[in-house]
Amino acid sequence: MPDAALTPDDIERAEAAFGPLAESLRTLVDLAIRSRVDDERAHRARALIEQAGAILSEQLSPDSPGVQPTTDGRTLTWGNVMIGVRNAIAPPLRVHRAANNSAAADLVLGTPYEGPPGLVHGGVCAMLLDHVLGATAHRPGSPAFTGTLTLRYVAPTPLGRLRVEAWVEREENGKTFSAGHILDAEGTVTVEAHGVFIRPRPRS
Amino acid sequence: MPDAALTPDDIERAEAAFGPLAESLRTLVDLAIRSRVDDERAHRARALIEQAGAILSEQLSPDSPGVQPTTDGRTLTWGNVMIGVRNAIAPPLRVHRAANNSAAADLVLGTPYEGPPGLVHGGVCAMLLDHVLGATAHRPGSPAFTGTLTLRYVAPTPLGRLRVEAWVEREENGKTFSAGHILDAEGTVTVEAHGVFIRPRPRS
Repeated sequence: MPDAALTPDDIERAEAAFGPLAESLRTLVDLAIRSRVDDERAHRARALIEQAGAILSEQLSPDSPGVQPTTDGRTLTWGNVMIGVRNAIAPPLRVHRAANNSAAADLVLGTPYEGPPGLVHGGVCAMLLDHVLGATAHRPGSPAFTGTLTLRYVAPTPLGRLRVEAWVEREENGKTFSAGHILDAEGTVTVEAHGVFIRPRPRS
Repeated sequence: MPDAALTPDDIERAEAAFGPLAESLRTLVDLAIRSRVDDERAHRARALIEQAGAILSEQLSPDSPGVQPTTDGRTLTWGNVMIGVRNAIAPPLRVHRAANNSAAADLVLGTPYEGPPGLVHGGVCAMLLDHVLGATAHRPGSPAFTGTLTLRYVAPTPLGRLRVEAWVEREENGKTFSAGHILDAEGTVTVEAHGVFIRPRPRS
């Protein structure tokens, strides 16, 4: 049986209930890496995780959020790996866009995003830049897809407080050419990025 | 008080206890996005997550795994965001390297890695390619860092079964020039990548 379409009210209530749950889950993901408790405690913690899963499974959508129907035709982003409030993998990123389509996000990345010792994984830096550069290219009702993305790693990115900034360099034929970077807590640029983003032509 | 250094035995025991816990946690991350239970059930599930966290917090390393001392001088990768067996964000990726330093990984990505509806987030594709291309450049005792990475998105990457492949194109002056791609379940290339990876010179 397909899911019933979600009303704006359903969406608001679900985010209010599951947002705090995802927040607790983010903390648990971190603790599961850093904990040094004995086997017996690890076993007890796992049993509680399984119990929580059994409760959440009592009613379940078979689909990813992005493909779930809503009564107002929106695309649900609550599961998005970067911005989803219900996705414990997402920091979640809160991207602020200015009138000139520049975009920025401040965030703090802890242990779960580590690659080399004490540093953010280079792939996580790529993911952040893809998302924030992409945000400069979205237009109302017309999402943009990444065409190409070029990353230059100029300094190590330490775990901790970071800022991602992106701006539009030029637009032509439905393509947006954007640039951006990651700044560490001292304001040092650690990774630079250039991207070309494409908005599919509306069907006529 | 700094952590006591971990012996090879400690490491093996911790991975045996916490690997299955992280596996349960990966399932829970997915369920937390797709669940449609009522508020009361979401509240109960969250309480169990908090209880699990309290148990794991009873003994905790203040450091990321990568910077924790081990008695045999290794770098702990169990928290790594891509390959860490104790990190619920990591699929975890299992990278196989051949004698010619080519590398490949087969994996299945579900709901938590979604960007556009039904598709893998472009940033996740970047993260996978950064990691697998990087693996072609590591040499014994000499890890490589990403210098530059260029990604070309040629087709949408559907959620589900994927394969990532990478190979060395050439090496010069401690730099490895690598290429690779992501293949979907039908064997179609979805994203192509080129990268330059740098091994820091050993201190003399």
